[in-house]
Amino acid sequence: MHDIHERLRSAGASTVCAVLDMLGVAGTITGLPAIRPGASFAGPAFTVQASTGPLGTYDPGDFDIARYADHAGAGQVIAIDAGGARVSVAGGIAALASARRGVAAWVVDGGMRDVDELGEAGIPIHVRHGVAVTGRTRVRIERVNGPIVIDGVAVEPKDVLVGDASGIACVPAQRLDRVAAMAGWVAGRDRIAGRLVREGLSFSRAFKEATAEYAALHGPLEN
Amino acid sequence: MHDIHERLRSAGASTVCAVLDMLGVAGTITGLPAIRPGASFAGPAFTVQASTGPLGTYDPGDFDIARYADHAGAGQVIAIDAGGARVSVAGGIAALASARRGVAAWVVDGGMRDVDELGEAGIPIHVRHGVAVTGRTRVRIERVNGPIVIDGVAVEPKDVLVGDASGIACVPAQRLDRVAAMAGWVAGRDRIAGRLVREGLSFSRAFKEATAEYAALHGPLEN
Amino acid sequence: MHDIHERLRSAGASTVCAVLDMLGVAGTITGLPAIRPGASFAGPAFTVQASTGPLGTYDPGDFDIARYADHAGAGQVIAIDAGGARVSVAGGIAALASARRGVAAWVVDGGMRDVDELGEAGIPIHVRHGVAVTGRTRVRIERVNGPIVIDGVAVEPKDVLVGDASGIACVPAQRLDRVAAMAGWVAGRDRIAGRLVREGLSFSRAFKEATAEYAALHGPLEN
Repeated sequence: MHDIHERLRSAGASTVCAVLDMLGVAGTITGLPAIRPGASFAGPAFTVQASTGPLGTYDPGDFDIARYADHAGAGQVIAIDAGGARVSVAGGIAALASARRGVAAWVVDGGMRDVDELGEAGIPIHVRHGVAVTGRTRVRIERVNGPIVIDGVAVEPKDVLVGDASGIACVPAQRLDRVAAMAGWVAGRDRIAGRLVREGLSFSRAFKEATAEYAALHGPLEN
Repeated sequence: MHDIHERLRSAGASTVCAVLDMLGVAGTITGLPAIRPGASFAGPAFTVQASTGPLGTYDPGDFDIARYADHAGAGQVIAIDAGGARVSVAGGIAALASARRGVAAWVVDGGMRDVDELGEAGIPIHVRHGVAVTGRTRVRIERVNGPIVIDGVAVEPKDVLVGDASGIACVPAQRLDRVAAMAGWVAGRDRIAGRLVREGLSFSRAFKEATAEYAALHGPLEN
Repeated sequence: MHDIHERLRSAGASTVCAVLDMLGVAGTITGLPAIRPGASFAGPAFTVQASTGPLGTYDPGDFDIARYADHAGAGQVIAIDAGGARVSVAGGIAALASARRGVAAWVVDGGMRDVDELGEAGIPIHVRHGVAVTGRTRVRIERVNGPIVIDGVAVEPKDVLVGDASGIACVPAQRLDRVAAMAGWVAGRDRIAGRLVREGLSFSRAFKEATAEYAALHGPLEN
């Protein structure tokens, strides 16, 4: 994994979202739980725009899963904007095929089917709905690698998505270095605070001392 | 388990829903997660119609859990239409009593209480709400083994409910053989596709080859 | 743990809610799932009233987590009314600091961040939203240990909160003895009913016999 992605993943979505707040960037995605909790990821978005409608709205060929399952590549995060619809944009075999290409994760504002099998892919899969409603004639893939919107947050191709059980942060590609540096600072300070709390300090004392200690070593947080 | 039920259970809810789509049958139930994930089931519905209201709406005797917990039988799925209300229609002891009669699963468009104990019954339990709101004087059992509606899907007694982590499919009793045959075809083809993806083929290549291979052995999918 | 709290915890939220029903007390809280299922708790509320708004609504100093993480004490349940907002009122380190003080649980009608780390605190944490939306400049702590409302239920300081996977019951401080006595009766009767069902009795027979057996030993349920 790219070092800057690893630093963001290690800082965690909550810390990255706090940093985006400091910079005035709207990048906090909520409402897409992980199919299996416990995993985390960071990687550039391979974006997918999907339209959805009732059964029979589109031709079967409009639902071309291969455009993402077979084309997103190593380290990328497949990010699908299906407008939050309760319909599946892919299932177990597509997830498995993508994982074999080295895809880092899926982030779907819509649904996925074969929930029992999605874990077999071995990568984090965050989806608004785990549903058996199949996408054939209900979904049309409009475009890949254009701008999309996930849970109200604008996502451009190559923006970096950072996810864990708390949610998902979208870091704009142009802000990557700055956000990673700040997130590293905050995460480092918080690790010290956690240690001090375990040693018996109160929450407020621990944060005060951790901030002083970390700033003495690394300078103050700059934004 | 009846062989045709086992074939539907093994195919899985996502595949059965896809087959119902092909036949133009509206049978996909969503929004009722399993209390404990990982299990799957298929069996004919023992249907229950319940009315609900605020505390004090009904007489205590109107909430007659025994009408389903003690009467649904081996292999059946207790399916309760409580209109999606956030109120419990049964708890841990009722679930256990039904499991001892051989009931296959519960599907409840409403609530169940004693969530910590429901797992002890050892059968899949899909419920819209796990809640401590008890049904006494809030629930009246109106009718068993009449037509009901679960999450907008019409369910008749003896329709076969097929469920897993992706959701629940309702297969009309008159379509059972056709749906099971088609679901077996699709599931067999998908097993080959999954194997080919694990062997390194792309998603699109795997499906193309799996379809050709399965059709050569078993003939084309007919609907 | 105080003996009366232990009796309520052991009876479980579903049973305590049923008893509150009998007494005409509105005390059933729903919609706040546990971050990690399987635990249960009972203890007096340390109440917190929080206002929330979009980023930049409040001064950073208004979000004073220490007022609860460092002041709630042994056996208490931190209960935060944030109006159900999708914003974090605390994270992993605050939860850990509170647990070291002996806090019994958190009940939050709002959000918490650092979901992956909340389990480390080792206490039950029930929250409407696990989210990465940080509270700084979005949350103002208005008051501690005044009256609050959680999911529509009025909670006063020292009211006893009883929680498990089915939900949370709020027992008014003045009714504590009566509710604990009744909940103990119902839970004792239900334990016998569960045993009889496991021995093969039907649901209705088991409840009839368990009620007679328990009443013979302990007198009838009085309310």
